[in-house]
Amino acid sequence: MKHFLLLLYSGFWAATSYAQDNDSVVIRRIMEFALTRSSSYELLRGLTQCCPHRLSGSEGAARAVTFMRDAMQQMGFDTVWLQPCYVPHWVRGEKEQCTLRYNGRQEPLAVMALGNSEGTGPRGLEAQVVEVKNFRQLDSLGEKQIKGKIVFYNYPFNDAFVNQFQAYGDAVTYRWAGPSRAARYGAVAVLVRSMTSARDDHPHTGSMAYNDSFPRIPALALSTLAADRLSAVLRRHPQARIYVRNTSRMMADSVLSYNVIGELRGSVYPDRYILVGGHLDAWDAGHGAHDDGAGCVHSVEVLNIFRQLKLQPRHTLRVVLFMNEENGLRGALTYAAEARRKNETHLFALESDAGGFVPRGFRIGGDSLMIDKIFSWKKLFEPYYVHVWSRGGTGGADIAPLRGHCPVLAGFLPDSQRYFNHHHADTDTFDQVNKRELELGAGVIAQLIYLVDKHF
Amino acid sequence: MKHFLLLLYSGFWAATSYAQDNDSVVIRRIMEFALTRSSSYELLRGLTQCCPHRLSGSEGAARAVTFMRDAMQQMGFDTVWLQPCYVPHWVRGEKEQCTLRYNGRQEPLAVMALGNSEGTGPRGLEAQVVEVKNFRQLDSLGEKQIKGKIVFYNYPFNDAFVNQFQAYGDAVTYRWAGPSRAARYGAVAVLVRSMTSARDDHPHTGSMAYNDSFPRIPALALSTLAADRLSAVLRRHPQARIYVRNTSRMMADSVLSYNVIGELRGSVYPDRYILVGGHLDAWDAGHGAHDDGAGCVHSVEVLNIFRQLKLQPRHTLRVVLFMNEENGLRGALTYAAEARRKNETHLFALESDAGGFVPRGFRIGGDSLMIDKIFSWKKLFEPYYVHVWSRGGTGGADIAPLRGHCPVLAGFLPDSQRYFNHHHADTDTFDQVNKRELELGAGVIAQLIYLVDKHF
Repeated sequence: MKHFLLLLYSGFWAATSYAQDNDSVVIRRIMEFALTRSSSYELLRGLTQCCPHRLSGSEGAARAVTFMRDAMQQMGFDTVWLQPCYVPHWVRGEKEQCTLRYNGRQEPLAVMALGNSEGTGPRGLEAQVVEVKNFRQLDSLGEKQIKGKIVFYNYPFNDAFVNQFQAYGDAVTYRWAGPSRAARYGAVAVLVRSMTSARDDHPHTGSMAYNDSFPRIPALALSTLAADRLSAVLRRHPQARIYVRNTSRMMADSVLSYNVIGELRGSVYPDRYILVGGHLDAWDAGHGAHDDGAGCVHSVEVLNIFRQLKLQPRHTLRVVLFMNEENGLRGALTYAAEARRKNETHLFALESDAGGFVPRGFRIGGDSLMIDKIFSWKKLFEPYYVHVWSRGGTGGADIAPLRGHCPVLAGFLPDSQRYFNHHHADTDTFDQVNKRELELGAGVIAQLIYLVDKHF
Repeated sequence: MKHFLLLLYSGFWAATSYAQDNDSVVIRRIMEFALTRSSSYELLRGLTQCCPHRLSGSEGAARAVTFMRDAMQQMGFDTVWLQPCYVPHWVRGEKEQCTLRYNGRQEPLAVMALGNSEGTGPRGLEAQVVEVKNFRQLDSLGEKQIKGKIVFYNYPFNDAFVNQFQAYGDAVTYRWAGPSRAARYGAVAVLVRSMTSARDDHPHTGSMAYNDSFPRIPALALSTLAADRLSAVLRRHPQARIYVRNTSRMMADSVLSYNVIGELRGSVYPDRYILVGGHLDAWDAGHGAHDDGAGCVHSVEVLNIFRQLKLQPRHTLRVVLFMNEENGLRGALTYAAEARRKNETHLFALESDAGGFVPRGFRIGGDSLMIDKIFSWKKLFEPYYVHVWSRGGTGGADIAPLRGHCPVLAGFLPDSQRYFNHHHADTDTFDQVNKRELELGAGVIAQLIYLVDKHF
């Protein structure tokens, strides 16, 4: 009996080990292609040159839709199509102004309106400034000390977090919810310290949301240097005033836009989908190179690698470039609603929306047996320095609406250290993307998709 | 008996787990300090501003010795001293020239003399060019087709290697040994494709060594774009000629220089040393920010962290900033010879000489029981994204001469993807170093040194 079991086990291990050997050979080919023949870097160059500003509803966003559709067609995907969705249309207007006035002096401060913010009106507004470190301090000041003033949220990134996304998660509530929290006490505008560890003069924009119970006051991001300067001046001159002017506004009408979708048809299960995607829209400040041009070209490259290496997928591989992740999620919501309506079977969805930096791992949530199987492949990824396999989450903002419809939702985790230096700022440009780091990302995502396609 | 063993084991595990909990708390404090209060980034700014060019024997190298000695004294280390050593004195001379001539046309090519190369003489030299892909091709051409010509080694970095150090190891023999291999067949000069995956116009210098059996012919690095251009022209115009001029030379006399050494005295074993180091000299092209200013400030910061956090080391912690790693290793050889002569007991030595990029792990060679113990701490490092624990090697060029004297030699492994974009090129400047990536490096090295000091 013992011997029988031994044989059985050794047979089992031999088979497993053969399969893994074989897998390791194929995923090695995938990575070699990504590092030596990938088109991802040049595609990103093209996207950021052709359509640097791709905010939802803008002309640049419309151009990006055409550009990426054409690129996928030229790559010879089986199907390429546009999925219509209506997106909000926010416009920044004229370049924002912010002047600090104290003691007879004037100093300009680097600012940028937050996404969705209303404007000050063409004449701007001037008021005294109240700096608060956090919401607790805001609440303790109350209407008496806030009414008629500009609230300055100076909550810094906590540099002690090793992963910069934790620092972002910790601080971003001041950008997202800060304006209405201040409006509740009668503030006339808010200035928010930019969401970054970097000390420089580039403001970082990003979405905010008004609570309709309170007035929609203007909300702008200050660069970290401007925030430090303002804080220093306020310590000596608590009566300092700020003049601020922005003409941004939300247009009344939504705009017709599109998710851009490409497919390689599955040979065994053409009606079961494996999705990989990023978002095509980007804040207007930079060129959306890391956020999320990188995720778009990662995703397109996955299908390109399958095609070029003649790896016939068993399931249909679908790349989705979502529209309007940054300020509305309309593309994501439309996609999920359509997938449900058409009863499309989704097996696995992966989102890349954390930049084009060197891969560290994946965060995967959903069906635990399926995740167990995926995690059994960890060893295969060690030669590619992919060590982080974290369980949980919903992959990313764009695929999260597929929860309940798609059993496994995965997020690609590149290294986080440099992401927030550029996130939503004018420095998010192509030259900040390292070719090999980008290619390694495309490679490891394609490797994972290959294994999922093969083993499920 | 079973119960007794069970109790014993559970007691053992409880103790182990307590110790690890405690360790995890202290190393968390170490990292928080590194990320929020470290002086490493500003020290690197100072070093690269004060002494950007620190080639052995130069005035900049002498200034760097004083700068780092003063910095360590100001940090309040227990002992700071200079260890004399004589270093070779190679000078680049005037800016190199290289002109490609074919079909009545002239094109400049970006070149830089390799370290230790002799010059062409003030008038330069002109000859036909023979491109070779590798030594096999060189040997097959032989004297008949090489004599009197310039050999152009066009062996590219193999981008299929995930770790860029493998690509470097694969290609660097053409830089190191190529000149004499070509001189053997009567070549009058060599041009070597730069050691990088980057496609740009920055040549990368670095050491070469003459074999004294053959003439010492001039050897220069071509930028990768220049190499691609030259190769393209040679395909159409095999008779193309190159004019090249460099006035570099090795000076007759060695120069007195120094390793810069600082210590925190051990409370229990003051006569047993834990060493951490990098090299203070740097190629003259850039400012030696990643190579190896980063390793120097990593090393100094380890002792600074112990001092600032009042972590009294049990063994004496010694930081050594080695002189002349790049073209002679005289500092390293002097240090090892002195350590042996004085019979100084070394417990552990760690070198940081792979850039200031985000940490990936350590490579550790030597006593296998000691390494087993070190590897038992792996889990503690996962929160810091340190996953690579590789066995073998001798830590790095500067501590390798300690083999046989120091039982464990470790090398810090930061991410390799961007290192060779800047290595030995004029782009190795402070602005290419990311503050958090540098600080994370100092943090994880300090964490490892803390555990070694505590548990051995």
